[in-house]
Amino acid sequence: MSKLVTKITDRDVDFGQWYTDVVREADLVSYTSMKGSMVIRPYGYAIWENMQSILDQEFKKTGHQNVQMPMFIPESLLNVEKEHVEGFAPEVAWVTHGGKEELEERMCVRPTSEVLFCDHYKSIIKSYRDLPKLYNQWCTIVRWEKTTRPFLRSREILWQEGHTMHATKEEAREETLKMLHVYEDFQRNVLALPVIVGRKTEKEKFAGAEETYTLEAMMYDGVALQNGTSHFFGDHFAKAFKIQFLDENNELKTPYQTSWGVTTRMIGAIIMTHGDNHGLVLPPNIAPTKVVFIPIGTDEKVLNKVRELQKELPDSITSIIDDSKKSPGFKFADAEVKGIPIRVELGSRDLENDSVTLVRRDTLEKITVSLENAVSEIEKLLPVIQQDMYDRALKRRDSMIYEAGTYEELKESSKEKNGFYKINWCGDTSCENQIKEETGLKSRCIIENEEARGNCIVCGKKATTRLYVGKQY
Amino acid sequence: MSKLVTKITDRDVDFGQWYTDVVREADLVSYTSMKGSMVIRPYGYAIWENMQSILDQEFKKTGHQNVQMPMFIPESLLNVEKEHVEGFAPEVAWVTHGGKEELEERMCVRPTSEVLFCDHYKSIIKSYRDLPKLYNQWCTIVRWEKTTRPFLRSREILWQEGHTMHATKEEAREETLKMLHVYEDFQRNVLALPVIVGRKTEKEKFAGAEETYTLEAMMYDGVALQNGTSHFFGDHFAKAFKIQFLDENNELKTPYQTSWGVTTRMIGAIIMTHGDNHGLVLPPNIAPTKVVFIPIGTDEKVLNKVRELQKELPDSITSIIDDSKKSPGFKFADAEVKGIPIRVELGSRDLENDSVTLVRRDTLEKITVSLENAVSEIEKLLPVIQQDMYDRALKRRDSMIYEAGTYEELKESSKEKNGFYKINWCGDTSCENQIKEETGLKSRCIIENEEARGNCIVCGKKATTRLYVGKQY
Repeated sequence: MSKLVTKITDRDVDFGQWYTDVVREADLVSYTSMKGSMVIRPYGYAIWENMQSILDQEFKKTGHQNVQMPMFIPESLLNVEKEHVEGFAPEVAWVTHGGKEELEERMCVRPTSEVLFCDHYKSIIKSYRDLPKLYNQWCTIVRWEKTTRPFLRSREILWQEGHTMHATKEEAREETLKMLHVYEDFQRNVLALPVIVGRKTEKEKFAGAEETYTLEAMMYDGVALQNGTSHFFGDHFAKAFKIQFLDENNELKTPYQTSWGVTTRMIGAIIMTHGDNHGLVLPPNIAPTKVVFIPIGTDEKVLNKVRELQKELPDSITSIIDDSKKSPGFKFADAEVKGIPIRVELGSRDLENDSVTLVRRDTLEKITVSLENAVSEIEKLLPVIQQDMYDRALKRRDSMIYEAGTYEELKESSKEKNGFYKINWCGDTSCENQIKEETGLKSRCIIENEEARGNCIVCGKKATTRLYVGKQY
Repeated sequence: MSKLVTKITDRDVDFGQWYTDVVREADLVSYTSMKGSMVIRPYGYAIWENMQSILDQEFKKTGHQNVQMPMFIPESLLNVEKEHVEGFAPEVAWVTHGGKEELEERMCVRPTSEVLFCDHYKSIIKSYRDLPKLYNQWCTIVRWEKTTRPFLRSREILWQEGHTMHATKEEAREETLKMLHVYEDFQRNVLALPVIVGRKTEKEKFAGAEETYTLEAMMYDGVALQNGTSHFFGDHFAKAFKIQFLDENNELKTPYQTSWGVTTRMIGAIIMTHGDNHGLVLPPNIAPTKVVFIPIGTDEKVLNKVRELQKELPDSITSIIDDSKKSPGFKFADAEVKGIPIRVELGSRDLENDSVTLVRRDTLEKITVSLENAVSEIEKLLPVIQQDMYDRALKRRDSMIYEAGTYEELKESSKEKNGFYKINWCGDTSCENQIKEETGLKSRCIIENEEARGNCIVCGKKATTRLYVGKQY
């Protein structure tokens, strides 16, 4: 198993540099003259297109419709909801001039679109017959981050944001959880990410939300990546924006609201969960190219056979033939760094022996099969790779979940090793703050299915809640 | 043929107001607190999604890849190419602050992305092996227009922009025309728009381009809508950005560039070409819903039969059943204002008679067919509607193309009637300017397949060029 790619730092030596190297060598992004922004290159964008296409189908199946809101928010509109503006105003980009003229009122580039949706909902929701409204938007948002990293934290973020309005609190809560589970299924089954799903604490919830649910993915280095959120707003924004409807009894009521979003950050999660020292490793269900055929040598018969095999693959198994003039070694390395799930190698001798070699990207295992069975073996192997990638990530994640019985234990242990720490907690924000300040660990989410026992590990008061804490990207 | 929709102004009385009414009543857009921007509502956005999906397939078939560039352009980068910055600087939105801090260098929201692509191409094009680069981007751009109209002229524009780089001038020219014809085929065959395709004059070409090709659609009122462009840049931008590559002989060369784009303006073109006093009329090939079933009365048997018919339709024929509690009259009007190509009406008596009524939206003609043949009749009718819509638009367009033999004739005639006027022209911008100032007519495009005869109708010098002139949106 020779290491062909040398431009990638060892992930156990410097995980941060390893990430930067993979992102660059796999041709996912490119830096630009625009600090904090990036170009998403064709290979990176193809992964995002696959994510969009699968999620969009799920959104439509669950009754959602796509719309497009303005990109700008006038300052007065952003100011309508107090918590929200306090949460976002420090990190927005302000437009002050149109052409040569100064604007009467400055406006920000949307950091998220709650206020724009509310502004619109106010004009189209009049009666219970207008509810629910189940809208989604695919767009770019801007948050003026100081330090940026491709896919993880950037000034421009490609995402989708669902914004829905409901006649009752129950229905809105149900929607919040329904979409959380759409995300969970997608991340588990398509991205092979064993995410932990739960409710955020008061301190960590979205600015303006009543409840925030999160998908917490654990990276190879044991650090958490918040990989999507779903919010229940109650009637908070609706009241601030004076959105009301007449119910069946002709009484004025305030509707209940949700929002939910995932971003290109999911690409970062795939890289840091599945990648290795050879580069990217893509789960077959999201890979733009599932199979790469590499003919070895210049024998025309080999190339013809490869073309024949490609034709036999069903359309759903996307594939390419790398018949460029580069050396086989270079082609193998390129297929590896790009994380293509299966590499098919065929040379003249293989052809004589009626055999072909399949190389699994996830394990780098080589499997020799007869030419006759090649296509059916590829078809069988792809779901196996998908499942194995999930299982390995799950096992690794579970091996890095620890119980911290005392605050001392949490402090000592988290210095030595990253991971998710389970603690008993009193529910007070002051204890969360203390943990954050003294250990750098932040609340990930409440553990809903475990009961708190004994006392809060920080203040010693009676514990009410089980909580995951951990470092985050 | 009773007129059920009363909120739409007669298009022959006030075409501008008619347009605004249709856009509103068909639920395509909604105005917002953000002046000059609009919300694209689900029905309007679904049309755009169909356009995106069909065009994106064509782009990929012709070898193009999608990417995503930054949304912002630093002022110094916009300034690199002189003609370009002069063309766009007066109409860009400037970001001056990130959070509370003033930026060291202000940046504009992209009005188009030539300079961003050049900045990126400079870093990734080194050798002839890196060419061609065939990139496309779906995104939103911003142009700070003073007066705006939904889809036609807005501050935020949803569009795609292709940007390609080639080793030779010939290849870049070929690409320019190839993509022009992709647009032409799409607009003719899918949108049923009989566009006139040709080259823009020096005066009207894109800021920084060597040649600009345009698709000119003619609206119901005889006014032109520029409905897409494809530009050949030569090596103009590449030189300004110092993009160079080593050719096969290891010599440094400058690559040749194109760009091409279409926008949501195409939705405006559909409305103003095909719409009537009942509202929108959508060509079947772009309609989000091709068939609406309207069961009449409350007979369960009718509803069941309607469901049965819907199930028999192939998946490609998208349909809905309007079984809401509104009156049939209201439902008919709603289906009409939304421009759904075929309306299927079924009541108890129809069921007894084993018949069903199909209503063509384009002609409002009612066709009674047997229940047994309903599905096959719908399948046959859709392409007929598509073709008839194109033919009618073509006939109308041709009836509003005039020859203006003298400048007097042009001035007099264009006062009385809108349309495209063919003139003989010397090729001088000063004559174009004079026509513009004295008649309000602008050059549409050069008529490539007709030879100029006699003298320029403005200055009397020898004519070199046949030209379409006309008013524009």
